[in-house]
Amino acid sequence: MHLGAFLYPTGYHVAGWRHPGAQADAGVNFEHYGELACRAEAAHFDLLFLADSLAIRGDDIEALERTAIRYVAQFEPLTLISGLAARTRRIGLIASASTTYNEPYHIARKFGSLDHISGGRAGWNLITSQNEYEAFNFGMRRHPSHAERYARASEFVDVVQGLWDSWEDDAFLRDKSTGLFFDRTKLHPLRHEGEHFQVRGPLNIPRSPQGAPVLVQAGASEAGRALAARSAELVFCAQNEIHEAKAFYRDMRERLAACGRRDGSLKIMVGVFPYVGRSLAEAEDKYEALQQLVHPVSGLSLLSAQLGGFDLSHVDLDGPLPEIPETEAGQSRRQLLIDMARREELSVRQLYQRIAGGRGHWQLVGTPESICDELEQWFNERASDGFNVMPPYSPAGLYDFIDMVVPELVRRGLFRDSYRGNTLRSHLGLDVPSNRFARR
Amino acid sequence: MHLGAFLYPTGYHVAGWRHPGAQADAGVNFEHYGELACRAEAAHFDLLFLADSLAIRGDDIEALERTAIRYVAQFEPLTLISGLAARTRRIGLIASASTTYNEPYHIARKFGSLDHISGGRAGWNLITSQNEYEAFNFGMRRHPSHAERYARASEFVDVVQGLWDSWEDDAFLRDKSTGLFFDRTKLHPLRHEGEHFQVRGPLNIPRSPQGAPVLVQAGASEAGRALAARSAELVFCAQNEIHEAKAFYRDMRERLAACGRRDGSLKIMVGVFPYVGRSLAEAEDKYEALQQLVHPVSGLSLLSAQLGGFDLSHVDLDGPLPEIPETEAGQSRRQLLIDMARREELSVRQLYQRIAGGRGHWQLVGTPESICDELEQWFNERASDGFNVMPPYSPAGLYDFIDMVVPELVRRGLFRDSYRGNTLRSHLGLDVPSNRFARR
Repeated sequence: MHLGAFLYPTGYHVAGWRHPGAQADAGVNFEHYGELACRAEAAHFDLLFLADSLAIRGDDIEALERTAIRYVAQFEPLTLISGLAARTRRIGLIASASTTYNEPYHIARKFGSLDHISGGRAGWNLITSQNEYEAFNFGMRRHPSHAERYARASEFVDVVQGLWDSWEDDAFLRDKSTGLFFDRTKLHPLRHEGEHFQVRGPLNIPRSPQGAPVLVQAGASEAGRALAARSAELVFCAQNEIHEAKAFYRDMRERLAACGRRDGSLKIMVGVFPYVGRSLAEAEDKYEALQQLVHPVSGLSLLSAQLGGFDLSHVDLDGPLPEIPETEAGQSRRQLLIDMARREELSVRQLYQRIAGGRGHWQLVGTPESICDELEQWFNERASDGFNVMPPYSPAGLYDFIDMVVPELVRRGLFRDSYRGNTLRSHLGLDVPSNRFARR
Repeated sequence: MHLGAFLYPTGYHVAGWRHPGAQADAGVNFEHYGELACRAEAAHFDLLFLADSLAIRGDDIEALERTAIRYVAQFEPLTLISGLAARTRRIGLIASASTTYNEPYHIARKFGSLDHISGGRAGWNLITSQNEYEAFNFGMRRHPSHAERYARASEFVDVVQGLWDSWEDDAFLRDKSTGLFFDRTKLHPLRHEGEHFQVRGPLNIPRSPQGAPVLVQAGASEAGRALAARSAELVFCAQNEIHEAKAFYRDMRERLAACGRRDGSLKIMVGVFPYVGRSLAEAEDKYEALQQLVHPVSGLSLLSAQLGGFDLSHVDLDGPLPEIPETEAGQSRRQLLIDMARREELSVRQLYQRIAGGRGHWQLVGTPESICDELEQWFNERASDGFNVMPPYSPAGLYDFIDMVVPELVRRGLFRDSYRGNTLRSHLGLDVPSNRFARR
C-alpha cells in the first residue's frame, strides 16, 4: 500500500485553520513544512503532495477573508518542494504545475532539476487549472475551455517527456584528461513542431536520476482519463464508494492495456480525509468540533456555489433549505444536495457543514482499527493502490494519522516499516523509463 | 565592502572543469553546492549569485562537447537556490531569471516564495536573455531585439513590484477566535493593463519578509543603465580599469538622483576573476596551469566568435594571427584583438588563452596582500561597493579566495567578521521598501 501526505497548509477543511491543532501561518512557515516532511518521512510515506493554483480561488471577499484554503497566502510549490528536498533524504516529492499557464521547457527543466537536487525523488502532478481566475494573471480575457486545456496538456506532456530524453544516461563523460565533457552521439535535440508548441531543445540539464520525474495526473473526466492512460504513472483521485472506485480502477487498467502499457505501470491513489480517535466517540468529537468552527459566511459561500450561485445570505440557518430555482450550471450536484437536505431533514447549517470538509474526498471518522479495516478492504479489492492523506487540520490531523493509523497498517503487513529504495519510483514500484533515442 | 560568490558550476574559465581543483559534475551535484554555500556563509559573504540561460549557448558541437560553461548541464537556478535556502541561514540568495521568456506573475510568486522560505534572503537578478538560442525553446522564430527586450523588461518589473505589494505587511490576522484570516482593507489587487502585460492580481502569497526581494540588474547598455537607475538595488558589472569603473559608478549615482532615488539605495558590485597564491609566482603558476588546459578547439571557437566568425580551424596555433577580413559584426572587439596580437607578437594559441578566462571580467593574479590592495583601492575610490567573486575553477578557486583573501580583508577592516543581520537587505545596507498602497 502506498501513502501520500497531501500538504494543504492549515488542512483541507474550510475551517481547519481555526482548529487549535492547526498552524495558522503554515502557508508561509517553512520550518513548519520541514517538520511535516520529516515526520512523514520518519513514517516511511511514499510521497509528499503539493496542490496549486495560480490565483486566489474566487472573488467573494466575504468568504475569502475567512478562509485559508483558497490559495490566498501560501508558498509557490516548486520553490517549497526544492527546499523540502534539502531537508529530507528518502521521501518522494510531488508538486503540481499547470500546463495551461506554463511553458514546457520551464516545466521539464525545473522538475528535471528537482529530480537531481533530490537524488531521484521528484514527481510532476500535471494540472490543467480549474480556477478560471488564473487567466486574468496571465494576460488572457477568459480561461480556456476544458477541451482546449486538455488538447494543450496532451501536447505539453509530449514535449516535456521528449526534453527529458535530450541526453542519454551516460552522455556526460567529464573526462579531464581528454577534455571531452560529453559524448555528442548521446545528445538528442527534440525539434518538436506541434500545434501548440515549437521547442527545439535540447534540455540543458542531464537526464534525471529517475530517468524522468514521475508523471502524476488527477483529472477524472474522459479527457483526463485518456491522458492519464497514455502518459501518467500515478493517478490521484476522489472516490467515496468502493464500487465506484473499483470501476474507476478497472477502467484505468483497461485503458492502460489499450495504450499498450504494462499492468502496474500506473498506480492509483485515493484521497482520504480522516478523523482519527482512540475511540469512535473521540473521532466523532473531533469531527463535530471542527464543524462548529465553520463560519456561516464560509459555509453559505460553499453551499451557494454548489447550488448554482443561489443567494443564501438571508435564509434562516437553522431552518430548512428554501426552494432553489433551477439554473444552467451543475445540475447533478445541485439536485444531490437538495435531495439530501430533504431526505435527512437537514437545516441550512447542517447542510453546509456536510460539504465543508472533504469537498468530495472520502471522509473517514473512526478508530485506527476501523479506518485500517476500510483502507485494507479498498486495497485488497483493488479499489486503490494507496491513499493520499488529506488532514482536515494540519499538522495535528496528519500526526494523528501517522501516530495512530500507520502503526496499525504496518502491524497488518499492509505498509512498509522501512524504505527499501531511495527514489520515488522505487517506493511506488515503477520502472525507470528507457531513453527513447538510445540505441538498444 | 560587499562580497558575492558567483557560483558557476565548475568555474568561470573555459577550461576550469579540467583543473584538478574543479568538481567536474558540479552542475548537478547538490551536495557540492551545499558545501560551497556553507563555506561562503561561514566567511560571511553577502550573497550567492546564480547566472542563467534558457538554452545551451551556441550550436558548435566541437566546442560544446569540450565545455562546461555554456549551460550544457546544470541545475535550474530557482530550484537550486530554494534548496540552498534550506541548507543556509544568513547568506543572501540571488538567482537570475529572464523577463523575455517568463511571465511576471510566476516570477513575482517564485521570488516572493523564496523570500519567505529563506526568511528574507532572496534577490532576483533581472536578465533579458543574451542567448538567441533561447527563442527556439519557447516557440519563437527569432530572439527579440535588445530594444524589444528592454521595453518588455521595463513593464515586467513594474508588474512584479506591483504584485509584491498586493498585501500590506500586517494584512494577515489569522485570528482563530473571530474567524478572520485577513483584513480585506489591506488587500490591493494590481489590475495592471499595459502594452505587454495584463495582470489582475493579487499575488497569492503574503508580502515578503524583506518587503520585496532585492532587485538586481547587470545590463551595462544605455537601456540597462536606465532600467537599473529606475528599479534596481544592486548592479553587477564587468569592469577592468579603475577609471572606467569610477565613471560607471558616478554615472549610476547621477541617474539615481535623476530618478529621485536616495544615494546609497543602489549598490554596485564588480566581477573579479582571481588567481590567488601565497607568492606571486604561485599565483602565476596557477594561471599558467589553467591556460595550458585550454583545448585548441575551445580556444579557437571563442576566438573565432570574437573575430566575426572567421574560420581559424586550419591555422598554425603557434604562428601569428593571419589576416582577418572585415565583417559586419563586432568591429571594436575584433580590432582590439587584432591590435593586441600584432603589438605583443602573440601566437594564435597565446591570443585565445588571453580571452579564455574572465571573458571581460577583472582578472587578478597575485598574493592575498596584492589582491586586497587592488580591491581596497577600488572600494575606497568609489569604483565599486563590492565584488562578485568568479573563481576560474570551482570549488578550489573559491576556497583560495575565502581562505587567503577574505581574512586579509577582515584584518584591514574592509569586510565584516560576522553577520549583523539576517536578511540580504541588512547585509547590503538597503532599506525595506514601503508598500505603495498602504496609507501612511
